[in-house]
Amino acid sequence: MTTAVVRTDHYPTRGATEVTTPRRDPVVWSSPGAPGPAEPSDLMSFERDGFLAVEELITEDEVALYRGELERLIADPAVRADERSIIEPTSRDVRSVFEVHKLSEIFAQLVRDERVVGRARQILGSDVYVHQSRVNVKPGFGASGFYWHSDFETWHAEDGLPNMRTVSVSIALTENLDVNGGLMIMPGSHKTFLGCAGETPKDNYKKSLQMQDAGTPSDAALTQYADRHGIKLFTGKAGSATWFDCNCMHGSGDNITPYPRSNVFIVFNSVENTAVQPFAAPVPRPEFIGARDFTPVR
Amino acid sequence: MTTAVVRTDHYPTRGATEVTTPRRDPVVWSSPGAPGPAEPSDLMSFERDGFLAVEELITEDEVALYRGELERLIADPAVRADERSIIEPTSRDVRSVFEVHKLSEIFAQLVRDERVVGRARQILGSDVYVHQSRVNVKPGFGASGFYWHSDFETWHAEDGLPNMRTVSVSIALTENLDVNGGLMIMPGSHKTFLGCAGETPKDNYKKSLQMQDAGTPSDAALTQYADRHGIKLFTGKAGSATWFDCNCMHGSGDNITPYPRSNVFIVFNSVENTAVQPFAAPVPRPEFIGARDFTPVR
Repeated sequence: MTTAVVRTDHYPTRGATEVTTPRRDPVVWSSPGAPGPAEPSDLMSFERDGFLAVEELITEDEVALYRGELERLIADPAVRADERSIIEPTSRDVRSVFEVHKLSEIFAQLVRDERVVGRARQILGSDVYVHQSRVNVKPGFGASGFYWHSDFETWHAEDGLPNMRTVSVSIALTENLDVNGGLMIMPGSHKTFLGCAGETPKDNYKKSLQMQDAGTPSDAALTQYADRHGIKLFTGKAGSATWFDCNCMHGSGDNITPYPRSNVFIVFNSVENTAVQPFAAPVPRPEFIGARDFTPVR
Repeated sequence: MTTAVVRTDHYPTRGATEVTTPRRDPVVWSSPGAPGPAEPSDLMSFERDGFLAVEELITEDEVALYRGELERLIADPAVRADERSIIEPTSRDVRSVFEVHKLSEIFAQLVRDERVVGRARQILGSDVYVHQSRVNVKPGFGASGFYWHSDFETWHAEDGLPNMRTVSVSIALTENLDVNGGLMIMPGSHKTFLGCAGETPKDNYKKSLQMQDAGTPSDAALTQYADRHGIKLFTGKAGSATWFDCNCMHGSGDNITPYPRSNVFIVFNSVENTAVQPFAAPVPRPEFIGARDFTPVR
């Protein structure tokens, strides 16, 4: 005898039509006054805007350390050949390396750093584990950007994260100028979930790491979102960081300047929100993109 | 008996290698105190930076007039079918319409407007004619930008303008935000000419209006230029304008926002610098791109 398990899906997506659903989850999960590096006012603005910019999360010396480690990783032929490395189609340069906290003890230390994991715990109100980590290099001279998307849309549809209890931090290892294709977020967009139209193709992740396709918002939805929320471009020196909620509508333009943009990107998920079966894909994505090891960061 | 005419080429380009030549021409050609709408301090900063931003060159009502006329032009099937219209390869939308001062009496009036032609005369120190005019629509949702280039490099190589005595004005018909692929200029770059490597292919213009190819600076040259001059992104409300010297190194990124960028673009050339045979191309480009009618604007 087989038993059917009926799951509640709070955030339907990849159906026949695009649908919006009001957010059903808190943004900041801890009680006011929970100890940690983020000030109460930081958490309040994170709740409202869906992001938090920190001017100097790590020092200049630390930037040099992590940049050196990034250079070492992308120059390593074994890392380049690894499936966890994403190669830019036109230039053939390494654009991202995933699971850097497992590939590198130096990045593992960064994840465990109280300035990093402490803020994640405050926002998510629990112990946390790493759902995804990567370093990104966006070279200059015409490297393409990423089209608008909500990360949660993908993590829910393809990785099986049930609720919005996940937060990302992007730590700049080079300066984010106003001209080199920095992160753009629509402030406040995290409070509405945009379920996208269209079924997930098999092995979608291989394509979508290079260019967005399934899970892409319509022009009409983006116009509505941008008119309502505006668009904020993030600039800042190397060492600055942007924390952002998993459901922020965000993207980036291309970069024709000579100045590459490199960053470390860590996604923390609450241990009370561990991945289940994907909500809108036949099989989960590989573990180096969406972790199935839920060991809390200590 | 045939006689060979020996011409001096002050700005060699499209040869075997990339070469830089110091500018051999003034930037502002009029004497200090020449009458016109630009203040002496405006002309001094134009001399130094190679550009001049004017916050409200035309009024809101005028913006509405010119936007309406632009909409009328790009919606007109006859204009769309005209070779003077450039179609975006992916979306099939009209991206530019050339020679708008001949296609439209409304744009002809704008060219003759003292706020416009007056500044051109002050900068070029003589009567002026229109070397090129166009309206540009850079749609949102992923329209591509223009890679780094000096206009003069093309106008010299392919249109036969002998000297740097040409100025452009871009008048914004929509707001230029910090996120929708606005004009970027390297301030001060106009004082050095970058002769590009590589011969001009036949009919280069058909391709280069959609994407840059011949006449493209190397990565090494762009790095040197950007390190020396920096990169300035232009933002401003509809009705604002940017004047810039013909030899400014400039470009623009793509535009993934829902906000299109439209502008009118007019290139004035001195009547003392009229086009001769191209300096580095087998035949001149068509007249709708590089005028051969040198009648002064009155």
